[in-house]
Parts: sequence; structure tokens; C-alpha cells
Amino acid sequence: MDFAYDARTNELRDRLLTFMDEHVYPAEPVFADQLADPARTPWTAPPIVAELKTEARKQGLWNLFIPGSHGAGLTNLQYAPLAEITGRSPKLAPIALNCAAPDTGNMELLADFGTPEQHERWLRPLLDGEIRSGFAMTEPEVASSDATNIETRIERDGDEYVVNGRKFYITGAMNPDCKIFVVMGKTDPSAERHRQQSMILVPRDTPGVTAKRGMTVFGYDDNDHGGHAELVFENVRVPVGNLIGEEGSGFAIAQARLGPGRIHHCMRAVGIAERALELMCRRVNARVAFGRPLSEQGVVQDWVAESRIRIEQLRLLGLKTAWLMDTVGNKGAHTEIQAIKIAAPLTVEWILDKAVQAHGGAGLGQDTPLAELWAGMRSLRLADGPDEAHKRSLARRELRRHA
Amino acid sequence: MDFAYDARTNELRDRLLTFMDEHVYPAEPVFADQLADPARTPWTAPPIVAELKTEARKQGLWNLFIPGSHGAGLTNLQYAPLAEITGRSPKLAPIALNCAAPDTGNMELLADFGTPEQHERWLRPLLDGEIRSGFAMTEPEVASSDATNIETRIERDGDEYVVNGRKFYITGAMNPDCKIFVVMGKTDPSAERHRQQSMILVPRDTPGVTAKRGMTVFGYDDNDHGGHAELVFENVRVPVGNLIGEEGSGFAIAQARLGPGRIHHCMRAVGIAERALELMCRRVNARVAFGRPLSEQGVVQDWVAESRIRIEQLRLLGLKTAWLMDTVGNKGAHTEIQAIKIAAPLTVEWILDKAVQAHGGAGLGQDTPLAELWAGMRSLRLADGPDEAHKRSLARRELRRHA
Amino acid sequence: MDFAYDARTNELRDRLLTFMDEHVYPAEPVFADQLADPARTPWTAPPIVAELKTEARKQGLWNLFIPGSHGAGLTNLQYAPLAEITGRSPKLAPIALNCAAPDTGNMELLADFGTPEQHERWLRPLLDGEIRSGFAMTEPEVASSDATNIETRIERDGDEYVVNGRKFYITGAMNPDCKIFVVMGKTDPSAERHRQQSMILVPRDTPGVTAKRGMTVFGYDDNDHGGHAELVFENVRVPVGNLIGEEGSGFAIAQARLGPGRIHHCMRAVGIAERALELMCRRVNARVAFGRPLSEQGVVQDWVAESRIRIEQLRLLGLKTAWLMDTVGNKGAHTEIQAIKIAAPLTVEWILDKAVQAHGGAGLGQDTPLAELWAGMRSLRLADGPDEAHKRSLARRELRRHA
Amino acid sequence: MDFAYDARTNELRDRLLTFMDEHVYPAEPVFADQLADPARTPWTAPPIVAELKTEARKQGLWNLFIPGSHGAGLTNLQYAPLAEITGRSPKLAPIALNCAAPDTGNMELLADFGTPEQHERWLRPLLDGEIRSGFAMTEPEVASSDATNIETRIERDGDEYVVNGRKFYITGAMNPDCKIFVVMGKTDPSAERHRQQSMILVPRDTPGVTAKRGMTVFGYDDNDHGGHAELVFENVRVPVGNLIGEEGSGFAIAQARLGPGRIHHCMRAVGIAERALELMCRRVNARVAFGRPLSEQGVVQDWVAESRIRIEQLRLLGLKTAWLMDTVGNKGAHTEIQAIKIAAPLTVEWILDKAVQAHGGAGLGQDTPLAELWAGMRSLRLADGPDEAHKRSLARRELRRHA
Repeated sequence: MDFAYDARTNELRDRLLTFMDEHVYPAEPVFADQLADPARTPWTAPPIVAELKTEARKQGLWNLFIPGSHGAGLTNLQYAPLAEITGRSPKLAPIALNCAAPDTGNMELLADFGTPEQHERWLRPLLDGEIRSGFAMTEPEVASSDATNIETRIERDGDEYVVNGRKFYITGAMNPDCKIFVVMGKTDPSAERHRQQSMILVPRDTPGVTAKRGMTVFGYDDNDHGGHAELVFENVRVPVGNLIGEEGSGFAIAQARLGPGRIHHCMRAVGIAERALELMCRRVNARVAFGRPLSEQGVVQDWVAESRIRIEQLRLLGLKTAWLMDTVGNKGAHTEIQAIKIAAPLTVEWILDKAVQAHGGAGLGQDTPLAELWAGMRSLRLADGPDEAHKRSLARRELRRHA
Repeated sequence: MDFAYDARTNELRDRLLTFMDEHVYPAEPVFADQLADPARTPWTAPPIVAELKTEARKQGLWNLFIPGSHGAGLTNLQYAPLAEITGRSPKLAPIALNCAAPDTGNMELLADFGTPEQHERWLRPLLDGEIRSGFAMTEPEVASSDATNIETRIERDGDEYVVNGRKFYITGAMNPDCKIFVVMGKTDPSAERHRQQSMILVPRDTPGVTAKRGMTVFGYDDNDHGGHAELVFENVRVPVGNLIGEEGSGFAIAQARLGPGRIHHCMRAVGIAERALELMCRRVNARVAFGRPLSEQGVVQDWVAESRIRIEQLRLLGLKTAWLMDTVGNKGAHTEIQAIKIAAPLTVEWILDKAVQAHGGAGLGQDTPLAELWAGMRSLRLADGPDEAHKRSLARRELRRHA
Repeated sequence: MDFAYDARTNELRDRLLTFMDEHVYPAEPVFADQLADPARTPWTAPPIVAELKTEARKQGLWNLFIPGSHGAGLTNLQYAPLAEITGRSPKLAPIALNCAAPDTGNMELLADFGTPEQHERWLRPLLDGEIRSGFAMTEPEVASSDATNIETRIERDGDEYVVNGRKFYITGAMNPDCKIFVVMGKTDPSAERHRQQSMILVPRDTPGVTAKRGMTVFGYDDNDHGGHAELVFENVRVPVGNLIGEEGSGFAIAQARLGPGRIHHCMRAVGIAERALELMCRRVNARVAFGRPLSEQGVVQDWVAESRIRIEQLRLLGLKTAWLMDTVGNKGAHTEIQAIKIAAPLTVEWILDKAVQAHGGAGLGQDTPLAELWAGMRSLRLADGPDEAHKRSLARRELRRHA
Repeated sequence: MDFAYDARTNELRDRLLTFMDEHVYPAEPVFADQLADPARTPWTAPPIVAELKTEARKQGLWNLFIPGSHGAGLTNLQYAPLAEITGRSPKLAPIALNCAAPDTGNMELLADFGTPEQHERWLRPLLDGEIRSGFAMTEPEVASSDATNIETRIERDGDEYVVNGRKFYITGAMNPDCKIFVVMGKTDPSAERHRQQSMILVPRDTPGVTAKRGMTVFGYDDNDHGGHAELVFENVRVPVGNLIGEEGSGFAIAQARLGPGRIHHCMRAVGIAERALELMCRRVNARVAFGRPLSEQGVVQDWVAESRIRIEQLRLLGLKTAWLMDTVGNKGAHTEIQAIKIAAPLTVEWILDKAVQAHGGAGLGQDTPLAELWAGMRSLRLADGPDEAHKRSLARRELRRHA
């Protein structure tokens, strides 16, 4: 047992930290200004993002997330501390490194389950950061965390599949640069419950696809990275070659896809927590009320201490999970993946809430990143299944161990 | 001791509930449509609001909040259950009845401390619902919950006062119909700590007044009711007759003003909680996951039960506080006023969080009022002083009782 | 609506407060000394208790809890604030006034459902404080909060019923002065689920009754008031006249009995909370750490403020519940009775925990009443059904309102 | 970075797990029976403990805790997972392995700071498990977590020191086999605040030493391992050679002593949590209420899931802390040592509370170990300084990082 990062991780951490200092943090106000430009095309990334991508790629900080030969060849354990660092500037750093959701999960999915044609047509431009992608699973009309509820249909008709359905909260999908959707639907509603679903690739420009509106998250539309779309699929026809894997494999592929994505989200959440704690400390060191700096007031000290204690535990759980994924596989790490998916949003949301409170009114608004980070973290308690569904599943495994 | 509402309260509750059913709830979708109209003047109330005001006034549901001869002549205890009902549609019902913050507090302040000229010039049109008003206390640069930190200056110069300073999160102040600001500043920074401050009336159109931008609250700009402005006062000159009360009375007036305002906010919060609980119940009764309605799942039942238990306690504390204000005065009810100010936002925020979670993704966005209500409730934990300042003050009184 | 106590309540409160000051608090150290006497008969009340009873009866502070002609004739709303006061010294004051559980519930049950013979034989000496009683419902082998699980059998055999079963945590039943048990068992396991149970009176000295051992509650055996017994009933024969009500009415009688008992417990809990808060304040006013009194440290102030805020809400819920029981009956007050049963233990446990923490090591042990009070309050989260069962039931009613 | 235990740890874990199965768990009921024997000498360990010690020593499972040549020569990181296992039977396993508090801390202290004479006289028999020891720091009259408050005096008089003072909650000190006390007192109240204190060895049989009474912890007197004594020192004279280190070094030695002790406590707490979770799962798998096993009820599943998630994080923090102590020293691991000291009791207390609740009445009493384990864990929130003091210290370091 050893808690020190290995040499490659340390070397990449150093380079990434330098990149953050030299390029990412200075880009934050530029990004804000560009977003405020009324001439901007809605839902697209401001130009500074492309500049950051070019620079990151030049520096070899590119596709760090993907195992194997497609990217930097890191293990999950090596990538996790880097993902954490990108979480400190979550609107810029992940996309700069081509490590942003939902593309990361989609790239992994295509790498693992895609055909050579699918690799050529979609994986390649994604790995090059030329296009973006969407993952269309959640539906407005049903509790889609239970995959048997999914109502979207994917029906074979000759050499084509016909897709009909409605999805919402499809992250990034309002962005015109989001060229391809991975759509989950049912090919056979009469099959065994986890063999009813399939996944299929639907290009954005296919007739019958409509990005109807951007859903908001606590008032934020996330316009800067393509928002969260409501998508309608009406008699959308795609060639049979667009199916990912085989008919009935949708549920299994979804399970496989979500594991790494969760760990990335959670490690970035640790970085968000570190930034929030830093902002909180700076603020309370600087403000005075009732004759003393806020930093000397006991309740504030309690927040600071609790934040540090919770961050340390959360990071370790994330790293251990990454290590398990590397050593026993995503299936063997099932409990830990669920544990971190449950723990991270709730923990970091708590820290952000305290950081907001420490800032007074300013914490609520646009002059700090805290409120928006909070909204994102709060949405993670629902994204990819509500906490309650994950807890239920985790508990049932634990209970069976003592049956 | 008697927990039944009196006859007048019951009669007004019945009329108000009918008004809600016949006018307010049906107006909600109209309001949303009018807000989405691109031709709308930003920060102003959509036309449906004026219609509701006309109807409410016609029905005698007008100025219910203000004691004495200016309004309906209700006690706080009689008004509290009505304020609760208006909380069920907080964007429409309070303004429809001319009972919306911050006008209510400003009207009470003018009624209690204003000169006849001030009554004629500002109180009258406010009571008639013809103009709106702002209360400018919070400052961006200091912890202004400690009034000694306030940096805005109000300096006498001949027959005028000159106001210089910066305020933010001034609710309603982006609205061009918000014609008058009550501004808190220091007339004598060298005086005893609670005699340094004064309040003064500053008309919106006075040279040197700038409504610089609308601050957001978790992504919401509250454009529909005038937002939350950052205001700049640069060498703003107003006649000496605009002072409220006397020089040095600002702190005392603020204390007096905030009491009733707090109880109104808190009773509306109870109404918000009731609506959230209702929405939560309807949702979980309607959705099925893993083979059972969500309403039969234990964790959801726990939320429902806890919500009901907490609402009952909160409402009773609000009513008791109102009764104390009526019987022993705002000063005698100091502890209870602080208690409800602390308890209401946190309790209702918790219930809203669970209602959001019960709705899945839909809870985060624009298809239910929950996320926006949450943001408003979260901001109440800071508005008019952070919870921590109130707890400190309440605790010190309790501790002295046992010294 | 009126939050002032009526004249009779105020008069009794004054007398009771005087009785507490003059007799109860001074008796506390005497009680402790008498308990430590090695010559004492285990499980019995020390002699000071009888003295207090004599004095209280002399002063007319006797049987205040029971409605109607058996006692003082108070309403629930009149009794509730008195019960609260007795909670400030929960080992002495309730028993001194003949208002201690489980006798109170048993007396109400006999008053409402007993035959004249049962009144004469058992109710009379209980009202006179000459004997004590037990209520034997909980069983060790099953989740007896679900009454259909109860395994104790009550079988008719000629003019007798034969009782067989095992009960535990039967409060007071180790006391040799506890002369009579109300036993819940099944007369007809094949009947409809809430008609299977009956209640029967079993005198302590009936052959086949064994008080096997005293169960502990977090290390306390509550030896001073008869402990919490494990009882075994082996072929215990009692005359048919010992049945309470009719066969199959056990569940309904239990429901009726538990309502008032719960409200008494909960109002005493409020008194316990007040005493804990007082002890906490005195302690932190008196101790200094790191250069300042504990009372000036922010986290301690947070505890004090939260305690006060929670107590106020809890008391009001208790009083409202009492009022509902008086005005619409126990059935109409079902939700509120469950609400207070759920809220009181958790709230007061939290306050006691903070009071313990404020006392440092001393809070854990025998030099303050805090730890023992905590243990009693913790056990209330299970007594008469775990919180979870009550929440489930309360939630289902709420959910049906919105079906 | 590597989360696998090393070979030596794995080998010892296997042997220890076997020892637990073959010797410790079977000894638990024997221990309970021997404790209940009225002929037993109060406050002493029952005979089964000596048998377990003999067996453990024979198996080489002895003094695993102490680094260097005195014991098994393990690192903190190697010992931590073993300490966790002993936590599963905390009354028997730690003492069986001669790894029980407070002897462990005292042995480390003597090993690090003792003279050869002190080693010979006290360390040797402690390492051999022949005697036990006490650590006398906490005082009843002051907040002794602030060392400047300590009132016990250690005054030089010729070749002797004279000790006067009062201590309480001195664990193990009621046991007649506890032959030696390490006493903290002030040698120079006028020195700089952390140079006023010294530590001195006081043999139990020195005239003037009185073990006045056993303090309880939530009703438990911990009679089986020597309880928690109130000690009085009246003009107690010991030779100058009994001083540990030099005059004025008491505070520094205490800091050094407490680090390893904390990590041991916390890792045992993880073992306690695992046992509690196991008991909870077994119970809810076995009981049925309202037609379904408790294990299928959502709230119970939430407890199980949360328990697992929290345990995983807590264990990792403990292991990381141990690793830091090994690699950068106790001082370098200061933040993490405080973090685990704060996190462990609160986390495990929460899990125990849920395990109690899942057991119904049985969870409160003597038929499961849960209530007693809870009491021990609750006391850890105060032992060696209240959480609040540790949080304050941890927060101040964090705040300085961002100054």
C-alpha cells in the first residue's frame, strides 16, 4: 500500500498545473467576456476554447482520459488526479484537454463497442476534438433510471432503423457542433428486461431530429457548452450499420459506459471542492464582522475543517475506485463506483453551500463561480440515475453478503 | 389558548383561496408566456400582473399586510395565514394584493416614520400600487450585516444631502417602475455604533443614480419583478426633507422595518413548502420505478412525512410570532422573529430539495417552479443578514438568561 | 387564535412551579442518595418518592393527566404545559403527581374500556397511587410494531383465558409494586388483521408469570422506577372477566391508549429539552478555553440558538396536538399525534447531545442528568413503534390527500 | 499509488482473522458470563482475558502496535488494518494482543521518552502484559483540552516531586492491576503556555493516591477493563527520577503520544462499524414487518448504503494517515491525524445509531453489543479533546494556507 502518486502522474500533474496557471485561469475572464458578446452564436463554445485546445494538444495534454492506444495510455489511477485538477476550472480545463463529458464516455463507448466504420466516421473526429457528441438516455415522461421504462423505440425496417421518442437533459446537444447522438431505445419491448434496449448512432442532421429547447439547471442554461437539450425523434431513419453492438445490448453497454464517466465526474468534483474551499478561506480571511475577521468565527472554522475532512475522504475513495477499475475491472469495482457517485455530489454540494454562505450575497450571483458550480453539482445527484436508485442497488449487494 | 383562526381570518382565507383558484393559478401560464415575449420591456411586470391587481383591489384583497388605517386593518396574526396562501404562487399572488416585498416593508417604514410630505409623495402611490420601491442596504464591499461596516455616505451640504456609495442585491430596483429607493448610509461615522446610520429617500431619476446591472440568484435574474440591482450613487443630491426620521436613527428604523417583513417572508415560505409538498406527492403518486409507484418507496415516504412534520412546526412558530408582535410588540417578539427568520429558509429549502429530487431531471428546470423557488429560499438564508449573525444574536440573549 | 394559557392553566403552572422549587428539585440529591443505599429493595422507588406523592396530593397536584371525573378534569391542552414542567425532573415529578407512564395510559385505558369490577379492583388503587402497573405489548422475537406479528396467545378455556408468550422492555415491571399487567396477545390469529388481538389483565402474582430480567437502555437499568422487564407468561390462567373490552378489540384499544400517552411523553420531552438547554448555558457561561468563555465561541452559540429555535417549534406542535385532541378527538388528531411522536425524541436527543458535548467528560457520566436523559430520549425513538413505522403511516395519509 | 496491503500485512491479517474466529468470538459469551459472576473482583479483567493473552502471544500476535524493536516492528500502515480487525471485538481482541489503550500510548511514551530505569521498571512489565497503566490528563474542574487550564501541580521538593490535583475519566484506573499512572501537571505555571506542563510517573500504591470512584459513560461503568476513575492526588511524593523527559516538556510529550493513539482508536472504530453493519444486515434480513423483510424497506436500504459508503471513506483516511505518519512523521501528518480523530467517532456513531434502530428495542440493551459500542464511540468525541477544539486547530492551519 502506497499513497504516493507514481512518476508519470507526478510529471503530468506538474505540467497540468502549469498549464492551468499559464493558460486556463487567465482564460476565465476572457471566456466570460466572449460569452457576453451579443453577436455570439448561441450554445457554441467561445473562441478562447479552441485556443486552449490547440495549446493543450501541443503540450501533450490531450485525451488523457482514454485507456489504451487512442489517447495518452494512462490508467484510471493515473488519470484521476489529473481529472481532479481540471475540476478547478470545470468550464474550461476539461474541454481544453478534450476530456469533457459527454464526449469522453461516448469516445470510450465507441472505442470499446464501435465498428471500424463507426471509429472512422465518429471516433476519429471526436478524438481530434473536431466535433462534439451527445448521449441521449433520459426521458421526460418516465422514471428512466429504470431502463425498462424507456419509451423511445428503435424499430428495424429493412436496412434501416426507425427511431421515435423524446429525450431531455441531453447535455451539449443544443450545440450545432454536436454532430452525433448516441440514442438509447427499445428494439424489443417483449424481451427479458435488460435485453430490450439498444443503442444507435443518430447524426444531428438526420431528418426528424429536433433540438426543441434548452433545459435549465437552477436557472443556468449552460449555453457556453451546448446546454441540456430536449430532443425529439420523429420517424428518424438511420442505416442498420449505425447500431452500436448488437440488438439488446443497450443496457449492458450503458452500464459499461457509465463507470469511467462517473469516476471522472467525481474526481473533477474533488477539484471543484478544493477551489470552493480556497475561495471560502480567502473570503473569510479578508472580511470583518462584529469586530473580528470571519475566519476567527467558530462556525466558519467548523465549515473549513469539515470541508477539509470531507474532501480528503472523498478523494481517497475516488482514487481507490480508480485503482480497483484498473486492477479488477469496472464490474469488480461496482460498489465503489456507486459509492463515489453517491458521495461526491452530496459532499461537494455541502462545501459549495458553505462557500456561498461565507460570501454573503456575492455567493449567490455571477461574481463568483460558486452558485453555478453548486447548480452543476446538485444536478449530479440526478444525472445518470438519482442517488436513491444507486443506494438501493448498493444496499442490496451489501445485504446479500450477510444473507 | 386556541388554535382556530378567528372569523375575520376565516372569511378572508375563503375569499383569498377562491381568488387563487379563479385568478392566480390560471394566470401562471399566462405570466410565463408574457415573460417569454421578446418584445417585453425588461425587468417590468408582464401585463397580467396589472389585471390581477385590479381584480384583487376590486375584491377588497388589497394592502392586507399593513396594520392601522392605511390598509385592511388586520393584525399580524390575521394577516399571517393570508400571507401563507399567497406564498403558494409567490410570483403573482403577493404583488396582486399589493403585499409584495420590498414595498410592504417600505410602506410600513413610511407609515411609521415618514413626514406628511413623504406620505403624500411616496406612501400614497405605493398604497395604490402605482409605483414600486427599493430598499438599499446591502453593500458589495463589506459584511453589511454588521451595520458599522456600511460605507455609503450621506453628507449634509446646505439644504441637501449628498449620497455616495454602492449597493447590490437591491430587489426590484432594475424595474423602471421602481421610482424610489430607501437608502441606508452613514451620516456620522464617528458616532456611537448604532447612531452612525441614517435612511434617506432617493428618487430613481435623481442625477448620479445608476442601476448598473442585475445580480443573479443561482442563475435566475428575477427579471419579472425587477431583479436584484447593483446600484451606484455618485454625488447624488436630495433635499434634506428626504431624510427619514432624524440623523442617526437609521439603525433603529431598520430594526423596526425588518420585523414584520421577516414574518411575511416566513409565512409565504410556509405556503411555498405546502405547494412543494403537494407537487412532490402528485409526482410520486404518478411515477413508477422498479415495479412500484415512487410513493410506495420508503425513502420517498420519509421525505413526505418529514416535510409534513416540519411544515406544521414552522407554521405554528410563524403564527405564534405574529401573535407576539400583536400582543407584546416587535421588540418583545425579538427572539421569535429571529427564530422564524432562521428556521423558515432552511426548513423550506430542505423540502424543496426533496421535491426536486422526487421529480428527477424535471425538478432542476423550467417545467416545475421548484428549482426557482429553491433559489429564492436559499437566498433568504442571506437576505437581511446571514443565519449566522441572527443565531449569534439569539444565542447571546439566551445565554444571558442563564448568566 | 390565541397563544396565551388560560387562567386555570396559569394557576396550576404557578403552583406546580412552586412545588418543583420547594419539593422536587431539593429531592433530587436525596433520591440519588437513597438509590445508592445498598440496603434498598431493588427496582422499587426510594422512600422520598412516597413523601413527594403525599405532598403533591395534599396540594391538589394529583392525577392531572386524566380527563373527566377521575382526576383534575383538565383538557389535554391544559395538562400539556404541566406535563412539560414535570419533564424538567422526569424521575421525580411525574410520579410525584401520579402522572407517570405507564400508569397514566393504563388508567385511561381502564377508565375508558374497563368494567366496573375492573375499575374497583385496579383503577381505584392506581388513581390512589397505591400500586403500579405495566403495559405488555413489545415482544423480543418479532417486529411487534406490526401488530399482526404478535405471537403471544390468549386462548379461551372455559371460564378462563390462558396466556402464553414472551414480552420485553416492559417498563416498570421489575418493580414488586407493579401489581397488574395489561397484556396484548392474539385471541384469534385467523381473524382480519386488526381483529386478531385482545388485551387482558394479568395480576403479577398469577402462577406462570415470571419477571425474568431487567433490560438495559444504553447501560441504564432504570432500577429506580421498576426498570424494563423481560416477562414470560407460561400457561397463565386468568378469569374471563379480566378481558378488557371484547375479543378482537385489542388493536383498537391500543390505538386509543397510545394517543394521549404520546402527547404526555412529548410534552415532558420539551421540559427535558428546556432543562438541558439551561444546563448547557450555565456550563458554557462558566468555563473558559483558549482565552474566552465557551459561551462566546461560535459553535456553542449555534447550539444554543438551534436548541431554542427547535424547542419553540416542538412545544407549539405539542400544544396544537393537545388542542386538536380536545376539539376533534384523538382520531382527528392522528397526523399531529404521529408528528409529535416522531419529532420530539429526535429534536430533544439532538439538544441533549449538544448539552453533553458542552460539558466535556462530565456530560457523559453521573454528575449531570444529561447522559441518562439522552438514553431515555433515544429509547423513545423505538418505544411504541419505531419512527420509521410512524413516518410510513403519516406519509401514506399525506400521499392519499393528493392522489 | 497502490491500495493493496503488502505481504506482511496480508499474512498477519490472515492469522489474526483466524485467531478472531477460533478464540476471540467464542470467548465473547464466556467473558459475559464471567463478568456476571458475583464473586468477581470488581474492575478487573475476567480470567478468559488472560487465556486469550497467552494464546495470542504464543501465536506471535503480540505488541503489534509498537514500532521499532520493542514489538513486532510493524509500520503504522501495517498495523492499521490489524487494529481495525481487533475493533470487531473491542473488549477482547485489543487486550488479548496487548494492544489496548491506554497501555499502548503509555508504552510508546515510555519507549520514546523514558529513562533506562523507567524502561526496566514499567515498560518491561507493560510489554509483557503483566501490569496495566493509566494516563491522567483530564480534570473535572476546568476545560483541560486547553492545557494552560490544567490545575494539577507537580512541585519539586528536594529529591522528590509533590503531586496535588484531581483527575477524572482516567480509563482503566479503577483496576487494581493498573499499577502506574502517567500524570500531567504543571511544574511552572509562570512559564510560556506550552512549557508549563510536565509528566510524571506515579505508582498506584503511593500514599496520597485515591481512586475515588468509577465514572460512567452513558450508564456503562466499563467495569470489565478498569472503568474510568476519578483520581485524587494529595501530597503524593515520588522521586525526581519519575519525571518523564524534562520539566516543561509535558505538553510536547502529550502531543507526541496522542498521534499514534488516535490512529489506533480510529482504525478500531472502522472495525466496530463493520461489525455494526454486519449485525444490522443480519437483523433486517431476518425480520419481517408490514409484509416485507425489513431489508427490502427503502429507509433501511438507505442506512445500509450510507454505512458502506462512509466506512470505505473512513478506512481510507485512516490508512492514508498511517502512511503519512510512517513517511513524513506525526508532525507532518497533523492535519490527517486530526481529521480522522474528528471523522471516526461521528461516522461510526451514526452507523451504530442506525444499527440500534434496525434492532428495535433489542438494540437498546444487553442482547447486542450495539448500545455499549455506541456509548464508547460517543465518548470518543470528547476523549483527548472535544471535536470542536480539533476542528478549530485544523481550520486555522487551512486558513493560513490561503492567507
